[in-house]
Amino acid sequence: MNYRTRVERVASWLASEGLAAALLVDEEEHRNPAIRYLTGHPSDALLFVLPEARTILLPWDVNLSRTLAVADEIIPYTDFKRSLAEAYSAITSRFALTGRIEISGGTSYPLVRKLAERVPELAIECREGGIDATIARQRAIKDADELAKIEEAAEATNRLLATIEERLARSGWNDAQSGAGGDSARRADTPGRRPSDLPSEADVALFIEREARMLGAEGTSFETLAAGPARSFGIHAFPAFGAGPFGGPGLSILDFGLRVDGYPSDVTVTVATGKLTPRQEEMIGLVEEAYDLSLALVAPGRPTAEIARAVDGRFERAGYSMPHALGHGLGLRIHESPAVNSREGNTDILEPGMVITIEPGLYHPEAGGVRKENDLLITENGFKMLTTARILRLP
Amino acid sequence: MNYRTRVERVASWLASEGLAAALLVDEEEHRNPAIRYLTGHPSDALLFVLPEARTILLPWDVNLSRTLAVADEIIPYTDFKRSLAEAYSAITSRFALTGRIEISGGTSYPLVRKLAERVPELAIECREGGIDATIARQRAIKDADELAKIEEAAEATNRLLATIEERLARSGWNDAQSGAGGDSARRADTPGRRPSDLPSEADVALFIEREARMLGAEGTSFETLAAGPARSFGIHAFPAFGAGPFGGPGLSILDFGLRVDGYPSDVTVTVATGKLTPRQEEMIGLVEEAYDLSLALVAPGRPTAEIARAVDGRFERAGYSMPHALGHGLGLRIHESPAVNSREGNTDILEPGMVITIEPGLYHPEAGGVRKENDLLITENGFKMLTTARILRLP
Repeated sequence: MNYRTRVERVASWLASEGLAAALLVDEEEHRNPAIRYLTGHPSDALLFVLPEARTILLPWDVNLSRTLAVADEIIPYTDFKRSLAEAYSAITSRFALTGRIEISGGTSYPLVRKLAERVPELAIECREGGIDATIARQRAIKDADELAKIEEAAEATNRLLATIEERLARSGWNDAQSGAGGDSARRADTPGRRPSDLPSEADVALFIEREARMLGAEGTSFETLAAGPARSFGIHAFPAFGAGPFGGPGLSILDFGLRVDGYPSDVTVTVATGKLTPRQEEMIGLVEEAYDLSLALVAPGRPTAEIARAVDGRFERAGYSMPHALGHGLGLRIHESPAVNSREGNTDILEPGMVITIEPGLYHPEAGGVRKENDLLITENGFKMLTTARILRLP
Repeated sequence: MNYRTRVERVASWLASEGLAAALLVDEEEHRNPAIRYLTGHPSDALLFVLPEARTILLPWDVNLSRTLAVADEIIPYTDFKRSLAEAYSAITSRFALTGRIEISGGTSYPLVRKLAERVPELAIECREGGIDATIARQRAIKDADELAKIEEAAEATNRLLATIEERLARSGWNDAQSGAGGDSARRADTPGRRPSDLPSEADVALFIEREARMLGAEGTSFETLAAGPARSFGIHAFPAFGAGPFGGPGLSILDFGLRVDGYPSDVTVTVATGKLTPRQEEMIGLVEEAYDLSLALVAPGRPTAEIARAVDGRFERAGYSMPHALGHGLGLRIHESPAVNSREGNTDILEPGMVITIEPGLYHPEAGGVRKENDLLITENGFKMLTTARILRLP
């Protein structure tokens, strides 16, 4: 349990900034995993951190916090009728806080103004680059406990990937799958193939949901995205999965992850079935090339924007463009520091202990989508590949 | 398709407030269903609404918006590198907006300040009670298209409730279920009962996930919460479901909903199995009483706080307290206007066309939890019950 160490690092930042406290909020419309990171409490709470490394947790569900949370003091949020303004008044006055308090930069403009009016003797710092960035930087480098959980999630993911590949490969598509892009003449080319036992998007997605728990994971890291050939053109297919066919002729995308004690994996498999069009082949080739190019560049000390720009450049020369980031940091939040994209403002640099995804992808309204995504741990000398997703070719 | 009517109502509010435009944002860490409500685009976009009822949609996924969205103009958000500040500059300058622009009250403090600096000639209104409250009030009264979708979700939910009840009742608990609170001597009392075919939390939850899609729903409304006797004490059990037993001796809670074109149902079934303790019986009796008391008070013109306070009072007299709201409005967002709670600031009044949940619940660290939740449409004369969840007794 590294909670104490984590809190101490945040507290020493508070002290160095001359802050009287920090307030973090995790609520339905605004999730903030920093509270889980610092206390183990998984959701719906306020957390005050004082510069002497004292934590006051105000969870909505006190029963849950008694099981899971580590904090110096736990006070039910319901004592303040779940009013943030009331809790803010009460706690800041109880500790007679004066000077400046730092509040997460995600806090809404009207709320900051309300809190400032309520406790005028305390100045509020609410900024980009403040407490959020401090904790995000700290969280970007995983500690041993975090790495153990991520590796456990990755290993379970790899076992599940192997099972899914095997099931898709041994069964193949059938009539139910020949919906979009279907070519009934092709059936004659694949005699003896059994009907698929994962024929629909929902079948694949729910198989993953069940297996995740059977493999000891907390669940999936996010809603599994299973998009058959008719829908794989979408970056984030909507809805994430439906009753439609998966894995039939053309390009299907499966993007999922498992979560162990809050820590996720995140992989994407593309299933390429049957004879593809020249455009589909070109897209697959480019994505594989971009993926290999990325791995050749991943190393500690490398600015992530450099890797992302190399990939953007490769796609551009072929007349394509990738509508999403090349990757992202991975942790309690599925998208977290470091950024792995080509945006101007991205100055993040890879460091040992970071866990990132690399996920080049291309999408076309008729051809569908191709994406290949794996998780990497940055090490002293390079990286360790954590997951084993690939572009799967089926006859 | 009522999108045009919905936009016109928002536009006339803008005109009445003398606003040059409104900007709505829907993004990963800050979902805002107002964009789906006004255009049909389901996620990840900016929307500018001008007082002449003109809409400019900036979706991340343009392919998706071409299929689903209705807007006067669709511009890829990627044209602005997905930078809100850049899109804000470009669009406000293209339409030569001056005066005041209203931005959702959920926008973060640092972002409002950044936008204000970027386009100093435009004053930003970012407030509670502004554009969000206006759209929330509008959304609280469902129009015909919305009601049709909610009723479709409710009907599918009722069919699924019947199936789940039947499966739980015909099978009953077995060895695998006698984990927490299990009493192996009880097995002798129920000869001939088959082993359960929904023995674990994951079994029930994933059965719902699959059936949701087979019944034509978009999916579930939120992560299904299936908490067996060992975990039902939690208001929102964490994780939402696991590999543990469901429906064995004691109290299990199943909270789920289906979503049709974005519109949800939301029900909770409590499964009470075997001989219960006096405390468990008392809790069930109180929840049933609170539920009936609520329904007796639900009527157009009634302040929702009055109903919630009646329930709070009943629980208090029995020495209990309910740690959550009595209910909530139901729509594109699972928790939306009207509020149905006893908080001081809640002045919401029931009106025909509103859809709410009523969900009294009590929780105890040892006894577990009881909750009963159904969805109601407020009518001219009272209400129409949309769903049929109940507290299910099993031997």
